[in-house]
Order: sequence, then structure tokens, then C-alpha cells
Amino acid sequence: MAQQSTALDALVEALRLLPGVGVKSAQRMAFHLLQHDRAGAMKLSQALDTAVHAMHHCQRCHTFTEQAVCGICADEARDHRQLCVVETPADQSALERTGSYHGLYYVLMGRISPLDGVGPDDLGAVSLMERAVDGRVEEVILATSFTAEGEATSHVLAEGLRARGLHVTRLARGVPAGSELEYVDLSTIAHALVDRR
Amino acid sequence: MAQQSTALDALVEALRLLPGVGVKSAQRMAFHLLQHDRAGAMKLSQALDTAVHAMHHCQRCHTFTEQAVCGICADEARDHRQLCVVETPADQSALERTGSYHGLYYVLMGRISPLDGVGPDDLGAVSLMERAVDGRVEEVILATSFTAEGEATSHVLAEGLRARGLHVTRLARGVPAGSELEYVDLSTIAHALVDRR
Repeated sequence: MAQQSTALDALVEALRLLPGVGVKSAQRMAFHLLQHDRAGAMKLSQALDTAVHAMHHCQRCHTFTEQAVCGICADEARDHRQLCVVETPADQSALERTGSYHGLYYVLMGRISPLDGVGPDDLGAVSLMERAVDGRVEEVILATSFTAEGEATSHVLAEGLRARGLHVTRLARGVPAGSELEYVDLSTIAHALVDRR
Repeated sequence: MAQQSTALDALVEALRLLPGVGVKSAQRMAFHLLQHDRAGAMKLSQALDTAVHAMHHCQRCHTFTEQAVCGICADEARDHRQLCVVETPADQSALERTGSYHGLYYVLMGRISPLDGVGPDDLGAVSLMERAVDGRVEEVILATSFTAEGEATSHVLAEGLRARGLHVTRLARGVPAGSELEYVDLSTIAHALVDRR
């Protein structure tokens, strides 16, 4: 936008830093905020500033928290014998919403991805190993994604954890609830057949 | 994200104010910024703050500018006899990039949209009429979108402008450059036939 002024250009450039936002979307967002929602723009500006300064990683589970240790890790009512390894805080949130898990978590904040140059060390695998051998954890549940990268992450972590004498399990693969068999992919059906109970 | 802390929740909520961003996208954006691009988050925070405080409407053409009158309106080298009416700064920018228009602009910052409760007055039609009768403007080129709402906007504005004795034109409709006739919609072909030259 050659004829636009600098502050608008800078805003469009900054909005493009968001994942999945190209130049057209960024222009649309900037226009919307300036024309229709300046209060919202200020709210977003302050929320970004606050979050960047307030949020850091939990010392124990590595998720985002404002405290030194997050609410879940600090909760003695939870089962400290189970440790569930997830990729992101969103995955952790999904598990929490099921209401069927009462143990603790370890959030990797990513997954092994050789193409992006992310190896086990970048994921804090060492820190997970230290966390898992605290003497209270008995079972580590690997809940990384069922993608090639998630499976690789799970595989690498399982080896390290088993070598430290921990009981390691993986989320079950199978047919999703509410689905018709006809429309489920063959790999899923094959896994569901193997893991039948 | 029940177990997440307040600053992260607030950031996700604020990101949802952006057009086209739902809760999943907002979570992904917040996670990306906090985990991978904290410098970018601060940059965005500052760009929003700066833009909200610096950007306002040009007194003459109503586009966003940091000055009282924008660079185009203040440029005496441009043809002050032509006034091109567009919906948004992005449309203005597209026209500028063609390099084939050297007149001035008036930016509506929207279009007539009865469903959204946007009428001619909300678009500053009165302000356009005042702008157009400055004694220098001879031709008003209506370059609103060729959608139902853009056409309605164009129609309403044309009536008011013609009543003030101005020469009003509309961007030509026709077959887009580089397209094969077979794949052009019938309405466009019909218009191209009527407007043949």
C-alpha cells in the first residue's frame, strides 16, 4: 500500500507475524480494527503486552502459567502417579475438558520435526526425563498426535522413559465416537481391529 | 481453556476480535506468539497502539492518514478535476498500483448494506457531496465493488452527485484480462456485449 502512511504499514506488517495471516488478511484486519473496533485494538495491544510479560513456563510441567508452578501441578488432589505427555497447552485443555483424566501433565510445547530442525533436545526431552523420575510418577501416558511427527516423538520419548524403568502407555487408536465404519479410513480400522477388546 | 491462567485467556479472547479468527485460530496464534515469537508479539502490541493513536481520517478524502490531509489530496501534481469513489483503502491501493489513475479519491470506508444497518448516511454520503462540489471536481468515477451492495451504493451516490450537476461515471464492466470467454460468467459477457467499443 504505497500511498498509505507508516503506522498503518507497520500494523499490517505486524499482523502478518500471526500464523496463517497473509497480506490480504492483515490489511483486512488492520482496516477492521481502525474503522470499526479501536477499543478492541487497544484491548489486543494490552493483552499481548500483559501476556508476554506475565506468562512463562511452569517449572514442573512446562505449560504456560503466571505462577512458578501451574495450578494443576500444585494441586495435591490430583493423581501424582500419572503423567500425561502432550504437545501443546491446547491438547492439555482438550484432555482436561473430557473430565476423565485426573493425573498430571507434561507439555512438550512442540513435537519432533526433523524438517523444521526440531529434535528431542529442543523439546526438553531431558527435562521430561528428570521430571518423570521424581519418585511419585508410576505411569507415563503418551498423548502426542497420531501424525507421523507425533508418532516419532512418542517413539523417542517411550524409549527414554522405559530405559528409566517407567511404565509407558499410549492413547488408544480406534474408531472415533459417532462415526460410521464406512467412512473411517482403513488405517484406523486396522488399528481398531488389532487393539480390539 | 479452563486450566489456563488469566493472561492467556485474555489474549485468546482479544485475538478473537480480529475478523475471521475463531477460538481455535486464536489459541494457535497465542501459542505461536508466546512460544516462538515474543518479540513479534511485542511488535504487534506496539504497532496496534501506535496505529490507534496516530491514524485518523483525511479531512478531504476520508482515508486513513497520520496528517490532517493525506499525501494524495495534498499533491497538487495530481488531477484535481477527477474524484474516484472507492469503498476501502485497499481498493484505493489497488487503483494506485495500476498506475493509470492520476486524480483524487474519496474513500467511503464501507458500502451500503441494509442487512448490517449501513445506510448512505453512515457512509458519509453527505460529506462526499460536500467534497465533490469544491468547484474543482468535474468528474466523479464510482469504483465501488460490482456486488449487489456495491452496485446499490454506486446507484445511490450517482443520483445525489448528478443532482448536483456533476459528471458521474462508473468503472467499465467486461471480460477480465487474460480470461477465456468459455469460463467467464454469462452476466459478465452480457455486460461486455452491451458496453462493446
